[in-house]
Amino acid sequence: MRKVTVFNGVSLDGYFVSADGDMRWAHNPDPEWAAFAAENAKADGVMLFGRKTYELMVSYWPTPAAKQNAPEVAEFMNNRKKIVFSRTLDKATWQNTTLMKGDLIEEVRRLKQESGPDLLIMGSGTIISQLADAGLIDEFQIAVTPIAIGQGRSMFEGLTHKLNLKLTQSRTFSNGNVFLRYAPAPAA
Amino acid sequence: MRKVTVFNGVSLDGYFVSADGDMRWAHNPDPEWAAFAAENAKADGVMLFGRKTYELMVSYWPTPAAKQNAPEVAEFMNNRKKIVFSRTLDKATWQNTTLMKGDLIEEVRRLKQESGPDLLIMGSGTIISQLADAGLIDEFQIAVTPIAIGQGRSMFEGLTHKLNLKLTQSRTFSNGNVFLRYAPAPAA
Repeated sequence: MRKVTVFNGVSLDGYFVSADGDMRWAHNPDPEWAAFAAENAKADGVMLFGRKTYELMVSYWPTPAAKQNAPEVAEFMNNRKKIVFSRTLDKATWQNTTLMKGDLIEEVRRLKQESGPDLLIMGSGTIISQLADAGLIDEFQIAVTPIAIGQGRSMFEGLTHKLNLKLTQSRTFSNGNVFLRYAPAPAA
Repeated sequence: MRKVTVFNGVSLDGYFVSADGDMRWAHNPDPEWAAFAAENAKADGVMLFGRKTYELMVSYWPTPAAKQNAPEVAEFMNNRKKIVFSRTLDKATWQNTTLMKGDLIEEVRRLKQESGPDLLIMGSGTIISQLADAGLIDEFQIAVTPIAIGQGRSMFEGLTHKLNLKLTQSRTFSNGNVFLRYAPAPAA
């Protein structure tokens, strides 16, 4: 059974992206954090995206700017296997990307039962809340950034029932980021 | 100068209260957490409320049910000095409560310059974001509860600019609550 992990940075008020799509507020330079995040991102796995996060990613990582600013991450992101879930996209042009237009829950349930590397979700609030409701997410890795932004998108928006979690790890970084790891927990 | 401290429990998605006003999801029994929260709440200080949180509090703490369920907290809350900020309330009937109908920012700026015990805010999202925007909050104490609730009210809703913070303490409890303490930080 392949594991599905979510990794997102959030503002102190719980948003992974500003209302206007900006994520620059999450940039919080610190060597210890940078090393941790880079190592964490290199975990073997297929990345799953919703359409909005996919479009944000594909508009940046394949560009010359990305290759100049962050060559290792760009190469890694471009080469990595990716899946985007969308009923409106006609095709996925980013290299090594599969477009899935079927039912999200059925597709992920099927993917989990196949053999292969684990599945990793970044951003993609819409698919996270649907998958969490269906009990298909095995781990949440959430980095709380020391900033409140007032409005934005939550990865849990649209949950149809409360999601009880069990804290399995916490780690504090000198830039003030707090990394929290949770597994789903039975309702109290 | 009197210090203004915020203390709120939030869901993992950043809400201090559900959209329907419910806070029962935050109840997360654990002796270590209960002792910490009780000790923390007993800090000397005048409590500041917005109207909604005031109405929630006054509908519960003076009742026989509260006196039976949590006699010590009820006595403490009822006896404590409280201020409610509201332009729509005619009077504040809860004992030891002052109704302030003037400009929130001016009133709190004046209160801070007086001598007296520190000022403590719980709940009260509307006043928190306004006071944070005006730079009048000296400390945020936020307990992240291991549950995502999907929708609710954020204490930072309505911020007109991003609020940069500095993490000054973190403490993890065996019930999965993560207590985070922040001071305002200059913009990066």
